[in-house]
Amino acid sequence: MNIVLVGSGNVATQLGRAFKMAGQDIVQVWSRNIDHARELADTLASEPISDLFDLDKNADLYIISVKDEAIKQLAHELKVGDKLIVHTSGSTGMDVLEGSSTKIGVFYPLQTFSKVKSVDFRLIPIAIEGNTPEVASTIHAIADRLSEKVIELSSEQRKALHIAAVFACNFTNHLFALSQELLSEQNLDFDLLRPLITETASKVQLNDPITMQTGPAVRRDQSTMDAHLDLLSDKPELKELYQKLSQSIVNLHERSQG
Amino acid sequence: MNIVLVGSGNVATQLGRAFKMAGQDIVQVWSRNIDHARELADTLASEPISDLFDLDKNADLYIISVKDEAIKQLAHELKVGDKLIVHTSGSTGMDVLEGSSTKIGVFYPLQTFSKVKSVDFRLIPIAIEGNTPEVASTIHAIADRLSEKVIELSSEQRKALHIAAVFACNFTNHLFALSQELLSEQNLDFDLLRPLITETASKVQLNDPITMQTGPAVRRDQSTMDAHLDLLSDKPELKELYQKLSQSIVNLHERSQG
Repeated sequence: MNIVLVGSGNVATQLGRAFKMAGQDIVQVWSRNIDHARELADTLASEPISDLFDLDKNADLYIISVKDEAIKQLAHELKVGDKLIVHTSGSTGMDVLEGSSTKIGVFYPLQTFSKVKSVDFRLIPIAIEGNTPEVASTIHAIADRLSEKVIELSSEQRKALHIAAVFACNFTNHLFALSQELLSEQNLDFDLLRPLITETASKVQLNDPITMQTGPAVRRDQSTMDAHLDLLSDKPELKELYQKLSQSIVNLHERSQG
Repeated sequence: MNIVLVGSGNVATQLGRAFKMAGQDIVQVWSRNIDHARELADTLASEPISDLFDLDKNADLYIISVKDEAIKQLAHELKVGDKLIVHTSGSTGMDVLEGSSTKIGVFYPLQTFSKVKSVDFRLIPIAIEGNTPEVASTIHAIADRLSEKVIELSSEQRKALHIAAVFACNFTNHLFALSQELLSEQNLDFDLLRPLITETASKVQLNDPITMQTGPAVRRDQSTMDAHLDLLSDKPELKELYQKLSQSIVNLHERSQG
């Protein structure tokens, strides 16, 4: 299969590697910045391009992996006839690709990617969608080459999944960053928290998180919470987050029992 | 070494097991509820008691592992002369134990405990404190039998560490619970997020979390954030958390660059 990667960021990089390892050809890598295109193309034995005029029109699959707000504009410029074209965005509907091809779809790998850290694609859920059952089936078969966890979702379901991923990954990582900031003010190393973080993630692999909740809020331990808020009194942002998250823990447990 | 466990909850349970495995004797387990005391004592070949009048006065170490707000009252009732007594609370000063003994201290294992899931104590940081250098040194030596990561902290440092742990563990787990709730409304399984959660925790084991931040907020991707907030419009609690956490990501990255 011949693939064109439209984009050269974290997702394009990891997807390109994974397809390459699965024996597919990445014939071109496009980026508006030719240096970015070249950097990724070089690792994939591929041709870098920065002008869509140079696009290979005979590839089997065109994958748009760019910032969400750039997808629609790119889709307007990309006309690939009856070739398959997909985007990789969790929060963007499939419909933005209409007009680019008769065969459009979505190929959303649910993972947090960086350029430097490789990931095992076999374990990454891939949410797919196609504009016809045949297209969905084709995309499903392509995704099956990379992952054991391919699932067909509607655009609505995929958007909910993406929001859930922001809570479970992006916001979670930010809480780690805030905790590191708190420690550094006391000259304490973040290493102290790393085993706790590993265990927190590990506990929810076999259990529902709501049953694993610990800490002062779920115990309704007001004196500990008051002591914490007192210590955060000169950090209004952290204090507010502490209050809102603690209240949300109480609310969720009331909802789940109600 | 003969140890009395004052308390029978998650921390007492895991500590009791760890000391037992390290070859120490747990001579008594106290709980106000004799059934709770018995449940734990039975697994440790120990004597359950519910009346402090029955307390063995000749143990080498008394460990108070009860709710934070109960420590002070218990400490008033426990008079152990010149025997070593510690509590295991992150957020409670050492001074609440004054009057119980001439040798007081803190033994705070930084981990999230449940009764059912055992943990490898060797990897758990234990923050210790003693009212004299000799007491601190004794507690350090005891902690060394359980963990490779013993650190002596002041009460002030330990309290900051405890707040950081609430952010990195309790609030994090709650974000997982909220994301599961979001998925279930779309009939999606939490399994979809589990690899992402593992990777999110894994990424910060060798890197600082601030450098690992991904997602719409750190990219200043306002259109995605607006789309998410729009989808959360009927969930005011989640919408507010989304806004506050996204703003906090932006603020932290400005602080770190400023």
